Amino acid sequence: MRVLGVDPGLTRCGVGVVEGVAGRPLTMLGVGVVRTPAEAELGHRLVAVEQGIEQWLDEHRPEFVAVERVFSQHNVSTVMGTAQASAVAMLCAARRGIPVALHTPSEVKAAVTGSGRADKAQVGAMVTRLLRLDAPPRPADAADALALAICHIWRAPAQNRLQQAVAQHTARASAPSWKGRTA
Amino acid sequence: MRVLGVDPGLTRCGVGVVEGVAGRPLTMLGVGVVRTPAEAELGHRLVAVEQGIEQWLDEHRPEFVAVERVFSQHNVSTVMGTAQASAVAMLCAARRGIPVALHTPSEVKAAVTGSGRADKAQVGAMVTRLLRLDAPPRPADAADALALAICHIWRAPAQNRLQQAVAQHTARASAPSWKGRTA
Repeated sequence: MRVLGVDPGLTRCGVGVVEGVAGRPLTMLGVGVVRTPAEAELGHRLVAVEQGIEQWLDEHRPEFVAVERVFSQHNVSTVMGTAQASAVAMLCAARRGIPVALHTPSEVKAAVTGSGRADKAQVGAMVTRLLRLDAPPRPADAADALALAICHIWRAPAQNRLQQAVAQHTARASAPSWKGRTA
Repeated sequence: MRVLGVDPGLTRCGVGVVEGVAGRPLTMLGVGVVRTPAEAELGHRLVAVEQGIEQWLDEHRPEFVAVERVFSQHNVSTVMGTAQASAVAMLCAARRGIPVALHTPSEVKAAVTGSGRADKAQVGAMVTRLLRLDAPPRPADAADALALAICHIWRAPAQNRLQQAVAQHTARASAPSWKGRTA
């Protein structure tokens, strides 16, 4: 599966594309940062984020988009910009029918380092190792976006099994036609 | 001037269009609410908000869009959805080149009632009076959207004078060519 990870932000929005399946070596297809000037009007900054995300979706055609879940209790000074940038990323994906998954920062850290309290350096080191890169991606927002994509690939099997179970349950509820088709 | 006011929200996003100038009776051109189902996925809700705002922009062609400024310290449980809906409204306007203005709730209340601490009923009563309506618009989000538009029309003259002064100052700074053109 191919996943675009997005670490949302207005000044720096980290983006990273990873391909692979759980239990196999992963491949990085791209990493970068969408930047908008702090002195620009908010509306124009959101348009710039939209254009940047659209370019990444056009170029890499991900099957899933994984966005960091924003909490209102953290980083009060920047949380509004983060929430607004994440809204734009989710909007771009949903408009194309691409499923959007939200993962918390501690879920992401736990997925790639084994600890939900790992620091940025530790996340960067593990992203470098897992994707077999020469050096940690810079800035940290870019590394975090890759970590989000990795987290989604590794957590996805459980989520997919759940979705399959729900789908099968729904199919059995309308048993006659389902049996008819498989007979 | 024609202004679309937006009281952002995911469940109910209030929208109202007012036309007029400061010091003259105002006219309501439309009022309503863009709703999205609480059980839908966040990405799909943002797409629904986008489609709703786009319809209002298409139909009324406002010259300005006035959006309530969201603060992270208020209403922690709903503030993220409010921030995300406001991002979509600002994005839709900025994409069309329509100037976006943000007004705080107390600026809006002070503009239409004279008090920054007025309650919803007071705002609804003044919106009804100022727009010569038969009854207060329901729900309150719709009335708040109209109040935002009224606030923008009434505050705009001062902002416009400031923008004019800045523009003149900039023109004088490049005096020779400016003089040359007016000579």
